[in-house]
Amino acid sequence: MSELTRFGVSIDSQLIKKFDALIGQKGYTTRSEAIRDMIRDSLVEQEWEAEDLETVGTITLVYNHHTRELDHALTDIQHKSFHQIVSALHIHLDAHNCLEVLVVKGKSSEIRKIADHLIGTRGVKHGKLTTTTTGKELV
Amino acid sequence: MSELTRFGVSIDSQLIKKFDALIGQKGYTTRSEAIRDMIRDSLVEQEWEAEDLETVGTITLVYNHHTRELDHALTDIQHKSFHQIVSALHIHLDAHNCLEVLVVKGKSSEIRKIADHLIGTRGVKHGKLTTTTTGKELV
Amino acid sequence: MSELTRFGVSIDSQLIKKFDALIGQKGYTTRSEAIRDMIRDSLVEQEWEAEDLETVGTITLVYNHHTRELDHALTDIQHKSFHQIVSALHIHLDAHNCLEVLVVKGKSSEIRKIADHLIGTRGVKHGKLTTTTTGKELV
Amino acid sequence: MSELTRFGVSIDSQLIKKFDALIGQKGYTTRSEAIRDMIRDSLVEQEWEAEDLETVGTITLVYNHHTRELDHALTDIQHKSFHQIVSALHIHLDAHNCLEVLVVKGKSSEIRKIADHLIGTRGVKHGKLTTTTTGKELV
Repeated sequence: MSELTRFGVSIDSQLIKKFDALIGQKGYTTRSEAIRDMIRDSLVEQEWEAEDLETVGTITLVYNHHTRELDHALTDIQHKSFHQIVSALHIHLDAHNCLEVLVVKGKSSEIRKIADHLIGTRGVKHGKLTTTTTGKELV
Repeated sequence: MSELTRFGVSIDSQLIKKFDALIGQKGYTTRSEAIRDMIRDSLVEQEWEAEDLETVGTITLVYNHHTRELDHALTDIQHKSFHQIVSALHIHLDAHNCLEVLVVKGKSSEIRKIADHLIGTRGVKHGKLTTTTTGKELV
Repeated sequence: MSELTRFGVSIDSQLIKKFDALIGQKGYTTRSEAIRDMIRDSLVEQEWEAEDLETVGTITLVYNHHTRELDHALTDIQHKSFHQIVSALHIHLDAHNCLEVLVVKGKSSEIRKIADHLIGTRGVKHGKLTTTTTGKELV
Repeated sequence: MSELTRFGVSIDSQLIKKFDALIGQKGYTTRSEAIRDMIRDSLVEQEWEAEDLETVGTITLVYNHHTRELDHALTDIQHKSFHQIVSALHIHLDAHNCLEVLVVKGKSSEIRKIADHLIGTRGVKHGKLTTTTTGKELV
């Protein structure tokens, strides 16, 4: 079980007033939670810059499932990286378009390489890598 | 069935040589595919700036499932937005950490609002909105 | 003269330890300053989303000054927007390449439009808009 | 003098129609120029990931010049990095707020370090590093 601590932030009154309005709009109920989120964001960014840490990303792909051989190609790349690809969610957006989200775990360079190959596959209309975290290092 | 066209790009020889090396690293097999991907990226960006078009995003959340009342809060927000949230994938990253990816369809402002509320929920360690597309407008 | 206030942030001990290491690397001497910077960043982002506030940006252009008619075209666009373009810095990077930084003040949509036109001018090798602030609203 | 080449891009008719509309809005007069700009953008991104290439960035700082000792601190950091800091532009935004843009040349890691220290200096309200290029490698 981890331990809580408390520290003080000194800040101009007008600045914190504006910040309160902004985080209220975003649905935060306390300043502490908003600030912890900004802190965690900066740490996840650092986690992805480190070369040898295990991290997690999601790869989002939109494609037309009628594209000849695309399903085959995507399945092929995924199988070659089965150690990293934890799971996949497939959505039928309409009669033609599919969205696939893959959850990938590994070193940041490995995840980037898998993402580049999937996104670059002919027939994929749009693809993106989202950098997130194993959560282990973030309490 | 949509129709193909072809256009020419004039470019400095050294510039295209460097670009060929870069896209080769990323796994592209043709320049056309790499350029179509850059074109689609710029159109998806524009799709998200338009206010009244339907678009698609994924929301990635990492959280500790032991956090009291978090599951309840996340389920609650998701139910209130059931018209937009198409589907969800849940992964057990380890004994404590969960990753959840939601696929959300709607106007960009609606999707952003749902994302802000989920990411701002106490107990969510890391959250991100990924902007993608219905694919309908992108051939 | 503005007034200082102080508020407390409760946070897990391990999380703040990691954050201290990160901000130490970045040269911050206090947590308050690092947190104020994150708060100001989020407010500047919001300032650029608002449509009718006056804000400030810098436009960075790299170009080859031998390109026929480029200097003329850039000067022309700048003169048409002289109300917004506050100042310009010109650097000779080498015998061929110039870097020009423009400081632009106005509504965010006006600044984006000027940036798009300058960056899209034939002969500009690389261009970027940097979104910053008048500083008035940020104490 | 560098040599021009020409290559063909095959693309769906609807996709290029939408792209034409987008680049028209941005003020491009030819597709070639818009595509060259996207290609150069991707190469500048790669230039910044390489560790040992010389590159160029601009650092934008907004600060209140009444802040005690800030001018002194900023000048101090800049003098320690005089090999990298090529030039600076100073603007008086209003009676209190200054904007300073520095042009910095060096390895990407050196430039990032200088930017981190300047942005983290107490009294700087907002700071950003803009990654651009020497232009040498981009024709």
